Amino acid sequence: MNKQNIYLSNKPLTEAKELWQATLQQHGFYDRDPLETIEVDDSLGRITAEPVFAQRSSPSYNAAAMDGIALHFTDLTGASEAHPLRLDNSRFIPVNTGNAIPDGFNAVVMIEDVHYLSETEVELHMPATPWQHVRTIGEDIVATELILPEGHRIRAIDQGAMLATGVTEIKVQRPPRAHVIPTGSELIQPNQKPKAGQIVEFNSRILAGYLNEWGADASRGLPVVDNPDLLKKAILTAAAENDFVILNAGASAGTRDYSANVLAEIGEVIVHGVAIKPGKPVILAMIGDTPVIGLPGYPVSALLTMRIFVREMISVFLGQGLPQSDYVEATLSRPLHSAMGVDQFVRITLGRVGDNLMATPSGKGAGAVMSLVRADGLLNVPSGCEGIGAGEEVQIELLRPQTEVDSTLVCIGSHDNILDLLANQLHKQRPIVRISSAHVGSMGGIMAINRGEAHIAGSHLLDEETGEYNISFIQRFLQNIPLQLINLCYREQGLIVAKGNPKNIQGFKDIAVGKHTFINRQNGAGTRLLTDKTLRDERIDTSEIIGYDHEEYTHMSVAASVANGSVDAGLGIRAAANALELDFVPIAEERYDLIVPAQHLQDSKVATVIELIRTNSSFHAAILALGGYNLCDCGKIMYEQ
Amino acid sequence: MNKQNIYLSNKPLTEAKELWQATLQQHGFYDRDPLETIEVDDSLGRITAEPVFAQRSSPSYNAAAMDGIALHFTDLTGASEAHPLRLDNSRFIPVNTGNAIPDGFNAVVMIEDVHYLSETEVELHMPATPWQHVRTIGEDIVATELILPEGHRIRAIDQGAMLATGVTEIKVQRPPRAHVIPTGSELIQPNQKPKAGQIVEFNSRILAGYLNEWGADASRGLPVVDNPDLLKKAILTAAAENDFVILNAGASAGTRDYSANVLAEIGEVIVHGVAIKPGKPVILAMIGDTPVIGLPGYPVSALLTMRIFVREMISVFLGQGLPQSDYVEATLSRPLHSAMGVDQFVRITLGRVGDNLMATPSGKGAGAVMSLVRADGLLNVPSGCEGIGAGEEVQIELLRPQTEVDSTLVCIGSHDNILDLLANQLHKQRPIVRISSAHVGSMGGIMAINRGEAHIAGSHLLDEETGEYNISFIQRFLQNIPLQLINLCYREQGLIVAKGNPKNIQGFKDIAVGKHTFINRQNGAGTRLLTDKTLRDERIDTSEIIGYDHEEYTHMSVAASVANGSVDAGLGIRAAANALELDFVPIAEERYDLIVPAQHLQDSKVATVIELIRTNSSFHAAILALGGYNLCDCGKIMYEQ
Repeated sequence: MNKQNIYLSNKPLTEAKELWQATLQQHGFYDRDPLETIEVDDSLGRITAEPVFAQRSSPSYNAAAMDGIALHFTDLTGASEAHPLRLDNSRFIPVNTGNAIPDGFNAVVMIEDVHYLSETEVELHMPATPWQHVRTIGEDIVATELILPEGHRIRAIDQGAMLATGVTEIKVQRPPRAHVIPTGSELIQPNQKPKAGQIVEFNSRILAGYLNEWGADASRGLPVVDNPDLLKKAILTAAAENDFVILNAGASAGTRDYSANVLAEIGEVIVHGVAIKPGKPVILAMIGDTPVIGLPGYPVSALLTMRIFVREMISVFLGQGLPQSDYVEATLSRPLHSAMGVDQFVRITLGRVGDNLMATPSGKGAGAVMSLVRADGLLNVPSGCEGIGAGEEVQIELLRPQTEVDSTLVCIGSHDNILDLLANQLHKQRPIVRISSAHVGSMGGIMAINRGEAHIAGSHLLDEETGEYNISFIQRFLQNIPLQLINLCYREQGLIVAKGNPKNIQGFKDIAVGKHTFINRQNGAGTRLLTDKTLRDERIDTSEIIGYDHEEYTHMSVAASVANGSVDAGLGIRAAANALELDFVPIAEERYDLIVPAQHLQDSKVATVIELIRTNSSFHAAILALGGYNLCDCGKIMYEQ
Repeated sequence: MNKQNIYLSNKPLTEAKELWQATLQQHGFYDRDPLETIEVDDSLGRITAEPVFAQRSSPSYNAAAMDGIALHFTDLTGASEAHPLRLDNSRFIPVNTGNAIPDGFNAVVMIEDVHYLSETEVELHMPATPWQHVRTIGEDIVATELILPEGHRIRAIDQGAMLATGVTEIKVQRPPRAHVIPTGSELIQPNQKPKAGQIVEFNSRILAGYLNEWGADASRGLPVVDNPDLLKKAILTAAAENDFVILNAGASAGTRDYSANVLAEIGEVIVHGVAIKPGKPVILAMIGDTPVIGLPGYPVSALLTMRIFVREMISVFLGQGLPQSDYVEATLSRPLHSAMGVDQFVRITLGRVGDNLMATPSGKGAGAVMSLVRADGLLNVPSGCEGIGAGEEVQIELLRPQTEVDSTLVCIGSHDNILDLLANQLHKQRPIVRISSAHVGSMGGIMAINRGEAHIAGSHLLDEETGEYNISFIQRFLQNIPLQLINLCYREQGLIVAKGNPKNIQGFKDIAVGKHTFINRQNGAGTRLLTDKTLRDERIDTSEIIGYDHEEYTHMSVAASVANGSVDAGLGIRAAANALELDFVPIAEERYDLIVPAQHLQDSKVATVIELIRTNSSFHAAILALGGYNLCDCGKIMYEQ
């Protein structure tokens, strides 16, 4: 029998959090001596552990607030334009801004109002009031007054205020020391080239990066191979030297997932298995009084789970209470299903199109780092909820500043490699503007434009009757929306096959006859329509194509499937074949256009894109370098309604 | 004749900025080799200087997405509960999540669905689909695809994505090297005790702190005394070693303001004097191709001027375009006057009370560091505008995250030292909550409650007819607002006099007779009413009191004026006299209450404050330690309507 440790519980999230916090309290995690005394000069970004009071008043002496002369205000009683008064230099003294006002003087007259008769005599045409143009002692702050409360994160201006009032040393919170232990015999370092089954160890870098961002002082260990004794040793050492330990991974129930067993042996497992998605197999344990958190192996699961259980530990340790997040209200763009009894955390892409802030769930699995790179926010679907319908208002926890979200150009529709180049060129020209691209196929793009969810949509839908691209589909599905159809390129579509075309595939016929495997694109993709049209033209039934039902979402994914040998052929653009150095058998040239609703033409982001498409020659050169593109109509309006 | 260099221009801000940017372009400031190649592991927070493309696909091999067994999907064709199929271990292999799928296999069956008959044979009850539970090569990202665009600030998750796809080194922007030179013979280091005329050098710390926050790599020099030759040498050395230099101060036109002359001698002064407030005497100069910015001496002027001219330099140098700020719309709580022809930058305190976000300009001068510590935002009153009326909507540039602003409890009204203790205790218990206190006197507080601008107001207004506090004023000025009047304390008011009471002042009579100087509180302050009542009771005319028209806004400011010898006496609370170790001559005990509108009683911030007042014994002990307080009614509702 294969030994597997299937004993995960499925504790509700709220219960798991309460139990964990109670355990931390009970083990005195939040009561450790958290204070450090440091110089104010070194205090930027630290958190005060005590209120800070002014040691001295500021200013600490009566100071001239203007350049001019200091005098006694009563000496100018009655002065006027008609009756100017003269003072010799026993009754005044020249002062610059910041100079001390000598005893016996109590006002400053601005240099502009002083008429020097000689080096030693002045004439003045106005009376003065007591303490005019003088910053009196304590005008800014009086000794003993509060400068900063306890629990305040110190900014540069706060440092200035403390130094100005004689405070040079303060007590601050000590950041909790954390150590991240990566585990797994399959892990290699980034500078090594992975063989099959090997994985570059990057999780610990992501995890330590976020621990530091949340206020911890995090270090990383070298990967520990799958050996319970070595793992035990590594955990015990880390637990002795740190405030808490992160273990990644080995939390699941596979044959080599030792974490839970090892932790139970050398300490106490408080929770193993929480009803959250992703992140279910998380382990919360104590080794003596040191918390150890065992995270799942997939990077997204690991990071989201750490966010749920560890961010709060750091924030409370630092006397900051619960961690604060920014939320934004948005409209869900497509329905989201969720299992009852599970708290689901969904990565969300946000886009402000016109007045609507649309939230689109990212479709990918827990292993997909890029989905987190691209995510703008998180949506929590609580355990009591079966799902949320399209069009419903949802609260999104922001992972990016809202200004960044608001300046994102939303491009939904067909995929083309040019979109990457466009994203980069746009970001370079206008760094605040990003492109968020969702590859849902040409029909998906038209539907997004119809729902007001996208600024632009890429489309290459062939009308077989007219031989025209896109226009009849627009007239049918977007008849009420004023828009422009702007050409981006013509591009070669064809069969992507292995380098050297070992199976000698020259068309779909060869695939059917040779029983070679194929990979298709999803329903609604223009490329799928092209496959279907070609099959009909060549009178091949789809059942003759092995893999017709096996779908991918982008040209690059199709090319990757060919490159890794999963399939023998797929239909896609030449640029994708070129990128992975594969062979390409041309089938057709097609037109790829951008649909732009008239209401967005004035949007400065959209305007920049169109300008760039029409005029930027280095952008054009970069496109042509990809191969398979023709830019003769690039930027031309093909249709308008 | 006293030599003064009054030759500042008054260039409009837009013109000055354009001229400066054109000069920077012309001198190639933005064209310096800005690239550095660094390890991805060291890249957190850096900005990409080139687009980053995947070097490898991720995953880089076909990987099990579940624990279970790998097999060929066709081996399960026709399997069902009724007709289970058996496989021996030549047709399957156990896999854990992440394991490579061996050649010849193309699907994974989850361990939960596998029935082991022996160590070498399994039974399966369902068919499989091709590539089920397999993460195929490139599922996350395909080699050559864009991971990060140029100009992107790298986060921990981005580091993970780069390492996952084989990117270990990248080109990033080099931060501009900046050097801050403090100037002035009056400057001393923070650990020295200032004599009259000496100032602790803290500006350079604030300035370098913000330069670093904006993305520069800033260093600080030791103060240079007021000597043109030394200044020249310091500037030339710094200009040779850095991308730009900040000079602070000496920008004005005083006798020892050498900056402009020195800069003109060794380089070119592009602008001296801009129509902004604060910050008018700013100098923008070039030494060879190195920009030198001469800032005014007052910390607030220096920082705001640097924000206007230097923040953009750093952002553009880093390829980030114009710096981005967060703005919020708010209602101006009191009118703001501005000179035509001058761009004014006003520090703003924000408070969300009910549905209103109120913006209150801070009243203090350019020298007041504390006003910037307390500021939540900045309001730009453009040069073409004469002022903005109370109640008008304004755009405020945020200096704090909006979540912090939204969780601020707004307390407007009479000043008492307890409010500092309250602010600290509240921040300690609920770190996200801050108190913003505006000391505008009791009547000012009542008016703020009436306009819906404050959550609570401190008040100690004596009705001379009834001998009661606050209630008759509430009935007169707040008759339509349901509210509670909650006692905070009784407190001793009296004359604050120098230590040892050298002038033997026992009451207002002694002040009038002895012609001793007095400092008063502002109109609308409860303490001023008490002064007036006492003077009437004792039949003393206000004209007999020297300094009756000289006003301060807080008890501590009054005490500070006595402590620094500006005046002989002032009326205030005992706690203020105690804090500065002054003598105190009791005049009256008075009641100090908090006015809380009923609509805010449920606000969690207000509820915490009331709870704290009523129950927190360490808070009570801290109050009593200040001296002069009686807490017998603390927290009691004195009146309700």
